[in-house]
Amino acid sequence: MKLDKCLTSDNINQNLLNIQYAVRGPIVQRAMQIERELEKGVVKPFDRVVRANIGDCHALGQKPITFIRQVLALAACPHLVSSVDVPEDVRQRVKEILGDCTQGSVGAYSPCTGLRIVRSRVAQYLQKRDGVPASPDDIYLGSGASDVIKAVLTMFVEDVDGKPPAVMIPIPQYPLFSGTLSELGLRQADYYLEEEHDWALSVEELERCWREASVDCHVRALVVINPGNPTGQVLTRRNMEQVVRFAYERGLFLLADEVYQENIVSKRFHSFKKVMHEMGAPYSSMELASFVTCSKGWAAECGLRSGFVELVRVELKVSAAFNTARGVMQCPTVLGQCILDCVMKPPSPGEPSYEQFAKEKRLIHQVLTERTETAYKTFNTIPGYSCNPIDGSMFAYPRIEIPSRAQEAAAELGMTPDEFYCLRLLEETGVCVVPGTGFGQLPGTFHFRTTILHPREEFRYMMEAFKRFHHNFLDNYS
Amino acid sequence: MKLDKCLTSDNINQNLLNIQYAVRGPIVQRAMQIERELEKGVVKPFDRVVRANIGDCHALGQKPITFIRQVLALAACPHLVSSVDVPEDVRQRVKEILGDCTQGSVGAYSPCTGLRIVRSRVAQYLQKRDGVPASPDDIYLGSGASDVIKAVLTMFVEDVDGKPPAVMIPIPQYPLFSGTLSELGLRQADYYLEEEHDWALSVEELERCWREASVDCHVRALVVINPGNPTGQVLTRRNMEQVVRFAYERGLFLLADEVYQENIVSKRFHSFKKVMHEMGAPYSSMELASFVTCSKGWAAECGLRSGFVELVRVELKVSAAFNTARGVMQCPTVLGQCILDCVMKPPSPGEPSYEQFAKEKRLIHQVLTERTETAYKTFNTIPGYSCNPIDGSMFAYPRIEIPSRAQEAAAELGMTPDEFYCLRLLEETGVCVVPGTGFGQLPGTFHFRTTILHPREEFRYMMEAFKRFHHNFLDNYS
Repeated sequence: MKLDKCLTSDNINQNLLNIQYAVRGPIVQRAMQIERELEKGVVKPFDRVVRANIGDCHALGQKPITFIRQVLALAACPHLVSSVDVPEDVRQRVKEILGDCTQGSVGAYSPCTGLRIVRSRVAQYLQKRDGVPASPDDIYLGSGASDVIKAVLTMFVEDVDGKPPAVMIPIPQYPLFSGTLSELGLRQADYYLEEEHDWALSVEELERCWREASVDCHVRALVVINPGNPTGQVLTRRNMEQVVRFAYERGLFLLADEVYQENIVSKRFHSFKKVMHEMGAPYSSMELASFVTCSKGWAAECGLRSGFVELVRVELKVSAAFNTARGVMQCPTVLGQCILDCVMKPPSPGEPSYEQFAKEKRLIHQVLTERTETAYKTFNTIPGYSCNPIDGSMFAYPRIEIPSRAQEAAAELGMTPDEFYCLRLLEETGVCVVPGTGFGQLPGTFHFRTTILHPREEFRYMMEAFKRFHHNFLDNYS
Repeated sequence: MKLDKCLTSDNINQNLLNIQYAVRGPIVQRAMQIERELEKGVVKPFDRVVRANIGDCHALGQKPITFIRQVLALAACPHLVSSVDVPEDVRQRVKEILGDCTQGSVGAYSPCTGLRIVRSRVAQYLQKRDGVPASPDDIYLGSGASDVIKAVLTMFVEDVDGKPPAVMIPIPQYPLFSGTLSELGLRQADYYLEEEHDWALSVEELERCWREASVDCHVRALVVINPGNPTGQVLTRRNMEQVVRFAYERGLFLLADEVYQENIVSKRFHSFKKVMHEMGAPYSSMELASFVTCSKGWAAECGLRSGFVELVRVELKVSAAFNTARGVMQCPTVLGQCILDCVMKPPSPGEPSYEQFAKEKRLIHQVLTERTETAYKTFNTIPGYSCNPIDGSMFAYPRIEIPSRAQEAAAELGMTPDEFYCLRLLEETGVCVVPGTGFGQLPGTFHFRTTILHPREEFRYMMEAFKRFHHNFLDNYS
């Protein structure tokens, strides 16, 4: 009689065992456990857990944009149109979107790339952003940016000249990249951002990374995250030009994760598409995949899973194959597509929803700006902390000093020093952040990533908690 | 100066080039082209294209279930609660679901497996369906069943004892399976359903398939589609027991695509979980993945992308790895999860929404029953057509006779005979169906799949079109 399982850790796709995703990792699991303990009345030095592990604005109390939600409600339930009190531009928008849905139902499949009307709005948005032509045919909608990033990376899974494929990613990085490379069995080639130069990309470092990886791999693509996650920097235009030239020289396909482009507090955001275009030939004819999502920006509709990739200047057979692979999964959620429509073409001045929209958007931006500045200042006043200027995103990634006695204590528990630090922080203050190990860091340096968009009182508590905790931590382990 | 593309059909992931997905394939592309030609005023022997290629009820005019859409609208826009006139159980349902969303927003991420409340409702539904315990911890929500089917198949991508992995799938099959196996580089081992026995599974054929595939592969999993797609049969309990015993003897992981379990017109549906449970040891402790979706059944909310897999009795390390891989993609759409909640726990007798819900559901079932019976009868009255009884799903898969002169004409155009037949059908009648080649068929036999849930007038036109066309086709090519 066979009692063994068919599928075991020995014979499962081994790539899956290599996936690490600290944003939902062990420290976060522990935070959830603590929440349950608190519910049961277990006494802790704090009343509740402060989740600062994931970039999820609504979970931090940000209110949804009214226009978006009104459109969603009526798109889902058009017969409410006659009975609810919503502005005329909401009705008009719903009419336009449903006019492009088969039989006017969001419950019918859309084309696998997304509704035509939404892809057209995306193209208009990009054209306005960059002053460069954009085509709906280059737009592929997905269930969030994650979905299309994975789909694009999948195209590179193929040995070239007998060498396994590798993809260059920044360190620190958002672990969607490392996790997806692991799942796909693509080699990860790390290039380090320069912490001492506000997380800039140095071409020397890109070259070093490429050279070392090229010994036994074929480096096929280069990922750039701008604005940075977890690092929050916005790249300068000059720096972007250097990156483009490097990618061109080394024949690398450029993947631009630009999902935080609307979360900017200082500096100007330039898209890679625009920079390449303005650099002229030969750079203006390079392939490019750029990713945008509704989970970030002022909409911040994480739960509704909507994003897209603009895939430009790729070979026809490549886009055809990409399209077929997407088609097997049918289509991204049509209500998610409705949100993207609203984000790409929000209410304009003079339209009935504009005033409220502008007010809501302004408030969101004020919170982002205020928290970013406060976090930056606070982290630089804590002895043993240092933090680069934060230009955008919704994170801070401070560097922290961890005394050697604490490092030894971590090693005894089989943890990295920053994991140990974050776990102690959680246990003592209830603040849940993600250790730098989850994003990557220069060996010997330690960081954590924290979201910073909490409600004012909670944010204050957090900032105080970091101060107090680090003080005690140094006392205990110095 | 480098002018070549980085990514070409030569160096792209070659698996992607092998994907075939006829449900959105060349005939469907041609149908879309014809639609545009008609719009431009090109004269055709028909006024409009009848899309019968995809199982998309809303696209065929089926009205959404009011309860579901009211819940969706209020979940998206809770502040409408005070102003809209909806039944109390809708309000209550929205309150329950939003109570499980972080900060009460569907725009916040859910756990990657799905909201706890929805997974609990799924477990209750399964328990009631089968009379067998079910746990929310075994439920993983996805963006439709396709998403979770792909995720489960991904686990089998690993050589075993030096042999490449293979997965057994029925022929004919729904090409999500063949397409996904192609993308993942898993070998496809075909077992043929017995057309002469109402598309039953014969154990001899399963054995033959396994034996032949095992020469150079390690067969790891067995896919069963019940009710069948495209074939519409519901397996008998005895047949299911045979399949379970076979899977047990050969150490195969059973994947049960049971997405059409609510689209039944005759026979009783048994889930594999129930059958395995009732067979007792050792079968009751076998691993199983069973797939369900909101895109099918009476909800038929294809566009909203919601489904789940129940993954039972798998090794802890396996479910942990599955979970981590799912987590990298964050979570399935929360509004899709709301629909699943409604489908798993629809209004009950006595609740305010019940009467309307029951009426809507009854109408949907009436249409399914009536169309199924008519399609079955009609196809069996056309000389040269034959069609097995259709127990469920929303398709017919008639077998068609194609004269040898037509087969030669097809070959000259580089098409299979059934592709040629379907293309001619489209060009002459505007009816767009999918050739049997897209699903698989015994060599020398020819079929097509057609959806059958069209509005009455369109359905009549279709049935007439098949008759007339086939008559002319035989005239032309006999």
